[in-house]
Amino acid sequence: MIFSSVISAKPPCLYLPRKFPVRCSSLSVSANQLNLTQFDLKTYWTTLIAEIDNDLEKAVPIKYPEQIYEAMRYSVLAKGAKRAPPVMCVAACELFGGSRLAAFPTACALEMVHAASLIHDDLPCMDDDLSRRGQPSNHTVYGVDIAILAGDALFPLGFQHIVSHTPSDLVPEDRILRVIAEIARAVGSTGMAAGQFLDLEGGANQVRFVQEKKYGEMGECSAVCGGLLAGAEDDEIRRLRRYGRAVGVLYQVVNDILEAKAEIPEDEGKKKKKGKSYVAVYGVERAMEVAKELREKAKKELHGFEKYGEKVAPLYSFVDYAADRGFSIGASS
Amino acid sequence: MIFSSVISAKPPCLYLPRKFPVRCSSLSVSANQLNLTQFDLKTYWTTLIAEIDNDLEKAVPIKYPEQIYEAMRYSVLAKGAKRAPPVMCVAACELFGGSRLAAFPTACALEMVHAASLIHDDLPCMDDDLSRRGQPSNHTVYGVDIAILAGDALFPLGFQHIVSHTPSDLVPEDRILRVIAEIARAVGSTGMAAGQFLDLEGGANQVRFVQEKKYGEMGECSAVCGGLLAGAEDDEIRRLRRYGRAVGVLYQVVNDILEAKAEIPEDEGKKKKKGKSYVAVYGVERAMEVAKELREKAKKELHGFEKYGEKVAPLYSFVDYAADRGFSIGASS
Repeated sequence: MIFSSVISAKPPCLYLPRKFPVRCSSLSVSANQLNLTQFDLKTYWTTLIAEIDNDLEKAVPIKYPEQIYEAMRYSVLAKGAKRAPPVMCVAACELFGGSRLAAFPTACALEMVHAASLIHDDLPCMDDDLSRRGQPSNHTVYGVDIAILAGDALFPLGFQHIVSHTPSDLVPEDRILRVIAEIARAVGSTGMAAGQFLDLEGGANQVRFVQEKKYGEMGECSAVCGGLLAGAEDDEIRRLRRYGRAVGVLYQVVNDILEAKAEIPEDEGKKKKKGKSYVAVYGVERAMEVAKELREKAKKELHGFEKYGEKVAPLYSFVDYAADRGFSIGASS
Repeated sequence: MIFSSVISAKPPCLYLPRKFPVRCSSLSVSANQLNLTQFDLKTYWTTLIAEIDNDLEKAVPIKYPEQIYEAMRYSVLAKGAKRAPPVMCVAACELFGGSRLAAFPTACALEMVHAASLIHDDLPCMDDDLSRRGQPSNHTVYGVDIAILAGDALFPLGFQHIVSHTPSDLVPEDRILRVIAEIARAVGSTGMAAGQFLDLEGGANQVRFVQEKKYGEMGECSAVCGGLLAGAEDDEIRRLRRYGRAVGVLYQVVNDILEAKAEIPEDEGKKKKKGKSYVAVYGVERAMEVAKELREKAKKELHGFEKYGEKVAPLYSFVDYAADRGFSIGASS
């Protein structure tokens, strides 16, 4: 559920005041020490998007009965998708010496379960979102019944894809099992489903829980899966877990700030129901403080990986992107 | 989706004419040759239900946020459930020398994904069922939003449970991965989701597809998973696949016949929308012929397993139970 909003034609960072606090983290020193400023995240990201899109296209073909596959493809192959979960998974896998071939099946699966969760979250009985990734949301095109089934089909397809496509010579079976359990944990009642539940039913005091479960879990799970595939140590997995969660929430908090700053009129807003955000509950100023804390928290976790040298650059850059949106990603932008 | 209807206090087989064709299969000779007539399916089944219910109780505890767990537990722990998928899985595993300890985690997972699919199938935009397993359906108690989330949470919990609970000393990891892929296949767009889609959107000529996908897949998957856990050969897995599918469809066809024979008034029927059944499309007489063919087909597949002696008895008995309903299973009966 991270990185899922539509990027407007005008980069949203332009709406921010120039002294937006999340731009000014003292932790940028760490990135400079590693000479990470030369890392080109946009090229890294767009290159991976092309490869992931190619794999997803093959992983969700049109079969009989066609309409359910069309509904699945409509969401999972949406051109405006930034593929942040798969890209984070690949980056975490590469950090620990894993290959892209090892990571891609899980990366695609993450995009499938991500798309599935977005389809269900957008339903009229949930967040009642009319658009997603720059196009009408799934149920507005295919109807609520087929949208539910498209989500129900994308979730298991992700698990199936991991089992059938992960190269056994690159990833031992015990790691594949841990990846499956991690994704299952993240999407279920201990993760995103719980976040969505409390977004609908909870009180304002549960905003942190909602944000961490609804938006942080996908980032956490993506980073952790990448590490698991590459055989990262348990303490490294714990760091990835905290890092990914912070980045996932950070992206959403900044998104909410940008939307508030842009003052999008209610009738033009894509959401018919407003969920529990830091902006809605505590206001923009407090949300900006939260974003600053999350940015620092995410970068602090990465200190433990600086021994891996420049391979940590993508993970550092994701933090800055989540906070600053320094460039546009996705066809809808 | 097999064996999921509520059993009435009066055994439904009483509604059938005494010469109901599915009681008269010539294949019962085969069972006699193996001296299977002494096998007590009811004791076997009820003993397993107690063990499976015990494991399910522990597998779906109440956690925060409580209401989503309560909604999950409401369906998966329903007292009227016959636990046919898990029992079939255990029986298939034992046929090939596997232990119950090896089978139970997958058996519980099958019940979780089974319950999840029933929750979603019952939704107003789907089959609009008001009751299930002798109690109001999930969404009528918890609301449509929470019912969708309870299903979304039970699906992945099944996969997570298999990974975390299958004893590694009893089941090699490659088998666990095959089991996960098999369940994912059965519930997704190649299986139950496709069946539900065509039940809603398809024509009368798709009744066989609907029945096989919506009702046969759970039986097929349950039998196959049992075989996979115990290391059955590929040709044996193929037999289990055809057997399980036939039994799953047989149960539903007989259910539809019994409902038609009983002439339940529309306003007392639990289904508000009638799906695509052989009875609805071709009438009771043709549905009885289909049931006879399915019974013979299922038993024919078991001929290949007679070398295993009495261990095949449960699988034979399931066929007769699906056709005859010779006794009551489940607290709602």
